[in-house]
Amino acid sequence: MTNEIMTNRKPFFITVEGGEGVGKTTNVAFIRQFLQHHEINHLHTREPGGTPLAEELREILLATRDESVGEMAELLMVFAARAQHLQQKILPALSSGKTVLCDRFTDATYAYQGCGRGLSIERIEQLEAMVQAGMQPDLTILLDLPVETGMARARARGELDRFESEHLAFFERVRAGYLARAAAEPERFSIIDASQDIASVQLQIESALLSFFSINIKHD
Amino acid sequence: MTNEIMTNRKPFFITVEGGEGVGKTTNVAFIRQFLQHHEINHLHTREPGGTPLAEELREILLATRDESVGEMAELLMVFAARAQHLQQKILPALSSGKTVLCDRFTDATYAYQGCGRGLSIERIEQLEAMVQAGMQPDLTILLDLPVETGMARARARGELDRFESEHLAFFERVRAGYLARAAAEPERFSIIDASQDIASVQLQIESALLSFFSINIKHD
Ligand SMILES: Nc1ncnc2c1ncn2[C@@H]1O[C@H](COP(=O)(O)OP(=O)(O)O)[C@@H](O)[C@H]1O
Ligand SMILES: Nc1ncnc2c1ncn2[C@@H]1O[C@H](COP(=O)(O)OP(=O)(O)O)[C@@H](O)[C@H]1O
Ligand SMILES: [Mg+2]
Ligand SMILES: [Mg+2]
Repeated sequence: MTNEIMTNRKPFFITVEGGEGVGKTTNVAFIRQFLQHHEINHLHTREPGGTPLAEELREILLATRDESVGEMAELLMVFAARAQHLQQKILPALSSGKTVLCDRFTDATYAYQGCGRGLSIERIEQLEAMVQAGMQPDLTILLDLPVETGMARARARGELDRFESEHLAFFERVRAGYLARAAAEPERFSIIDASQDIASVQLQIESALLSFFSINIKHD
Repeated sequence: MTNEIMTNRKPFFITVEGGEGVGKTTNVAFIRQFLQHHEINHLHTREPGGTPLAEELREILLATRDESVGEMAELLMVFAARAQHLQQKILPALSSGKTVLCDRFTDATYAYQGCGRGLSIERIEQLEAMVQAGMQPDLTILLDLPVETGMARARARGELDRFESEHLAFFERVRAGYLARAAAEPERFSIIDASQDIASVQLQIESALLSFFSINIKHD
């Protein structure tokens, strides 16, 4: 696969998912290097957030606070930020031919608000339909890791936000939620064993990316 | 109707609605005096807002900004704030026997986001069902006024927020939206001619409140 071939292709929407401390942010940086190396014009972003307004919503969502945050309020804020992010940033970038690489997306909502908090999956599907109208990632890299390992990494990184302060059982449900989604959509998901050292994780990711691009790029 | 009778009653959810500068905030203060005078234990609040988190969402909603705010993002933020407000403040107050008086509620969403912005009414109904599960105001005082008069009052009051900066045609749609909702639910709405001077507006409101309470209070 030459760089020329990889350049002449339709843009893709790639998301990176997983629980706390699995290495999403670390490996988004690695994937950017991969895309740069292969001269794939791309935009790098994250959720919740990605635009000034959506980042303000992110702050509200992640802040630790005395007021207990209702589950529906949280879910609606997540989708409000996503609606803004899609309309202002993700969709325009894809339309202009850029591949978009996003640190978390809607799978995180199913895993955290659905499986973690126990909100009804049908409700999330209704909101997803309103906001995305069928739009889905082309490739989702799921970093999977025993919960304790991820939490230890997140703790070592610094102060915990409102989600990171949840309990072990919550994160076990989040992990199971992610794995169930990956099992239901094996073509879209690539599951990475994120318990390995960084070099080994990145080898797995590079192999997943090469396989995705070689399947999805039209050789003309 | 004696104060004793008015005290021994179930709590009501009363909302005050209307476009910019119609006198909602002014007359909420008047209604509070009425409730105090009649010894009706009550809580006074407003939307969007009413809890610290919901007030943070209000600031995000009302801020004038360079970033254009998507209609779905706006609608979801409004309902996120409402979900939090209902769960943390309005429903607990009603459960504890307090009447709740609220400066704007869901009728404003139909008028502003539905009729003003042109978002689908079915979408608003879906979100209303998710967040309110059928919960509705018992009485809605709609202050109605020619758009120019209200805007002149709002302008005289000071700097305009993101909604107040909309154009005349937007506010004509908002006004028509409110009037259509009132026509569809005449039992819940009381339409007040807010173009009169304050004393006359308040006479109309007092009469509407007396009529509401005399119909709705069980004389035992
Ligand atoms: N494979 C790995 N082995 C050990 N530590 C890792 C690995 N990947 C990431 N880390 C470290 O774990 C912490 C959390 O990684 P980060 O990328 O911020 O995770 P996330 O964004 O998923 O929460 C960081 O300090 C990072 O350096
Ligand atoms: N009936 C009235 N006649 C003239 N001015 C009024 C009347 N009611 C309110 N105002 C003034 O109009 C301005 C807007 O009133 P306000 O209660 O803040 O409206 P809203 O809350 O509906 O935007 C205020 O300066 C208020 O003093
Ligand atoms: Mg991260
Ligand atoms: Mg006001």
